[in-house]
Amino acid sequence: MAVHPPLLNTPLPVPGFRVGTASCGVKSPSLMGKRQDVTLIVGDVDCHAAGVFTTNRFRAACVRQGEQTLLTHADKIRVIVANAGNANAGLGDMETVWARQLIEAGASAAGVASETVLSASTGVIGTPFPIERIQAHLHEAGESLSAEHWENAAHAIRTTDTFAKWSSAQINVDGHIYTLTGIAKGSGMIHPNMATMLGFVATDAPISAADLQSMLKRVANRSFNCISVDGDTSTNDTLLVLSSGIGLGHAPMVDTSIFEQALTELCIELAQLIVRDGEGVSKFVTIEVSGAASEADARTVGRAVAISPLVKTAFAGSDANWGRILSAVGNAGVAIDTNRITLRADDVLMFEHGNLYPEYTDAAGMEVFRQDEFTISLDLGMGDAACTVWTGDLTHEYIKINAEYRS
Amino acid sequence: MAVHPPLLNTPLPVPGFRVGTASCGVKSPSLMGKRQDVTLIVGDVDCHAAGVFTTNRFRAACVRQGEQTLLTHADKIRVIVANAGNANAGLGDMETVWARQLIEAGASAAGVASETVLSASTGVIGTPFPIERIQAHLHEAGESLSAEHWENAAHAIRTTDTFAKWSSAQINVDGHIYTLTGIAKGSGMIHPNMATMLGFVATDAPISAADLQSMLKRVANRSFNCISVDGDTSTNDTLLVLSSGIGLGHAPMVDTSIFEQALTELCIELAQLIVRDGEGVSKFVTIEVSGAASEADARTVGRAVAISPLVKTAFAGSDANWGRILSAVGNAGVAIDTNRITLRADDVLMFEHGNLYPEYTDAAGMEVFRQDEFTISLDLGMGDAACTVWTGDLTHEYIKINAEYRS
Repeated sequence: MAVHPPLLNTPLPVPGFRVGTASCGVKSPSLMGKRQDVTLIVGDVDCHAAGVFTTNRFRAACVRQGEQTLLTHADKIRVIVANAGNANAGLGDMETVWARQLIEAGASAAGVASETVLSASTGVIGTPFPIERIQAHLHEAGESLSAEHWENAAHAIRTTDTFAKWSSAQINVDGHIYTLTGIAKGSGMIHPNMATMLGFVATDAPISAADLQSMLKRVANRSFNCISVDGDTSTNDTLLVLSSGIGLGHAPMVDTSIFEQALTELCIELAQLIVRDGEGVSKFVTIEVSGAASEADARTVGRAVAISPLVKTAFAGSDANWGRILSAVGNAGVAIDTNRITLRADDVLMFEHGNLYPEYTDAAGMEVFRQDEFTISLDLGMGDAACTVWTGDLTHEYIKINAEYRS
Repeated sequence: MAVHPPLLNTPLPVPGFRVGTASCGVKSPSLMGKRQDVTLIVGDVDCHAAGVFTTNRFRAACVRQGEQTLLTHADKIRVIVANAGNANAGLGDMETVWARQLIEAGASAAGVASETVLSASTGVIGTPFPIERIQAHLHEAGESLSAEHWENAAHAIRTTDTFAKWSSAQINVDGHIYTLTGIAKGSGMIHPNMATMLGFVATDAPISAADLQSMLKRVANRSFNCISVDGDTSTNDTLLVLSSGIGLGHAPMVDTSIFEQALTELCIELAQLIVRDGEGVSKFVTIEVSGAASEADARTVGRAVAISPLVKTAFAGSDANWGRILSAVGNAGVAIDTNRITLRADDVLMFEHGNLYPEYTDAAGMEVFRQDEFTISLDLGMGDAACTVWTGDLTHEYIKINAEYRS
């Protein structure tokens, strides 16, 4: 089940990067040779890098090691090695050893020093990590490296995703054309901050690691941190951005605003693809919160609505149950004045300044909620800040996926 | 669906209290005469009263008015009037008028002054409140007042509850026997702080309103605030306690600890009944958190596990997916050291001091999770505080109830 997955254009190659995949049977030896499950993203030059990671306190070793690596080597990253099928999380002391061995296997397959390698793992938590199978087969990824293989990589990082997710953009800064290509995965345990989601973006735009890092937090807050499938934040969420531009000889960009805008839009596109592919999701709902005292307040309110099981089941049932939406707003823990709230579903005004809009009819609301895609707009009347959050509904299919299969 | 609802003993009459119900067709005129839906709990003397209410910022008018009344009249409350079938919430200015009219109707039916009346409403949010039907029929509740009618009242406050919930206890303090009888309702939108739950307790134990109020917050934190069905906190949650004892001429209790213990146990019993009757719940799971730095930390961790959709679907699927439990612990927002955590399911040790217990087998875990009732024990290793939380699983039935019906 997926809500209108768009037909995606072929991802654009990014100067300075090659991508390869291998079939290592990570989840099960029986999958070896049947699906690609380990990915190498290789910079041909030292890349500037930035990352944001899960806020879950059970942070997987790959997350802890990635943060450390970025502290010392953010201006000379060469490789991202990522596997699907096993999160290498919740495994205690061995987790750290296995994460290190994954990095070493990636370094060896790409022919670089291991301290320049970032890793990411996604899949089941608590199952011993099959490092031997990765060590035995990762060389295939090194041998298949190509600037054209982003689509393969987008497939190889999938777990329960029903389609592969990527996005490309090009920007013109002072006459230079730069490319951004990103891939992402995620379907369940999605309430990023970050969620069982991985996102990798490569660009040849010349930008310092420090600028990249400071921008990435803002970008994540407006993209991946604005989606929710089930309110669970995973142990392994990782968003990494690599830039090859300065290594390729481009002078650093002075004004990075065009780039940040493009990176934000690309990450929003990837984040929305994750919602469209959310476990059991049959509707794609945009929640626009405006009139908030701060952007953080707006995001908190939007996320509170997005994770409420009662709101999400109302979406699933095409029930314009605005009372549940207001109740979720009231539970967000944000200072609001209920007499100032205005609520719309698409262009149907439901609730205005704390009162049910006199001309609102249930029939008009139901017509909006029956659609596969619609927008809930909440004006809090407290200030000028806004944030948009994207979410899906909560369906029988979600229960089926998560109650009946081990993931 | 309900998990082993116990056969309840007949509720005990409480000296100084009479209870009556009326059939007002609150939810629909077609229900008039078919089900009792408005309840009067009447104190024959001025009662001491205390209340705790929802933390949702969309607080219904009955909640706002009840808080005000307790500020000025906590030592002379005479009546609780409660209706099911309509929450009188999300209705703007009219909500306040209707809540006041409900209080006046209750005062008139019981023959007391309206400033001594507390009210509570539960049911659908955002549907105009049918005050005329209540005004026309509430006198039936006044006419049916009896010390024996607690069971009728427990039925009359139900909404989606599949069974009526009550509990009685008697304590002996210095040779005096005192009675406590409580009734409660709640099934969905249950994550009390308080949840679409109502709880009313009457006692003839002689206790000051101030003692009652300070104790009730502790009691709620160990009972109703320790249950979760779906993580949604409603607009109307209310827990009220009335004591007739001093009005009946008993000297105030000097040591209230026996009473507080009994009140805590009674509220835990009512709270557990709500979980057993949770919407779609097929399993009753106890989550014991120990070794926490504070009781608040323990409760936060327990609630985080209790509301995680991935944990709850694992319960539904009888899947001993301990990785999801640890991930939920990590998301609780509480300072923990993942290397100190120990996790058990009943007596099966799964995870010890941050490592999977070597002798743990999936088969042993599955055997626990296949049961209708089991206990998850988490020792955080951070201190001496503890809290126990009760929750259910997340099933197809929950989706069906909330997606297919307006509630």
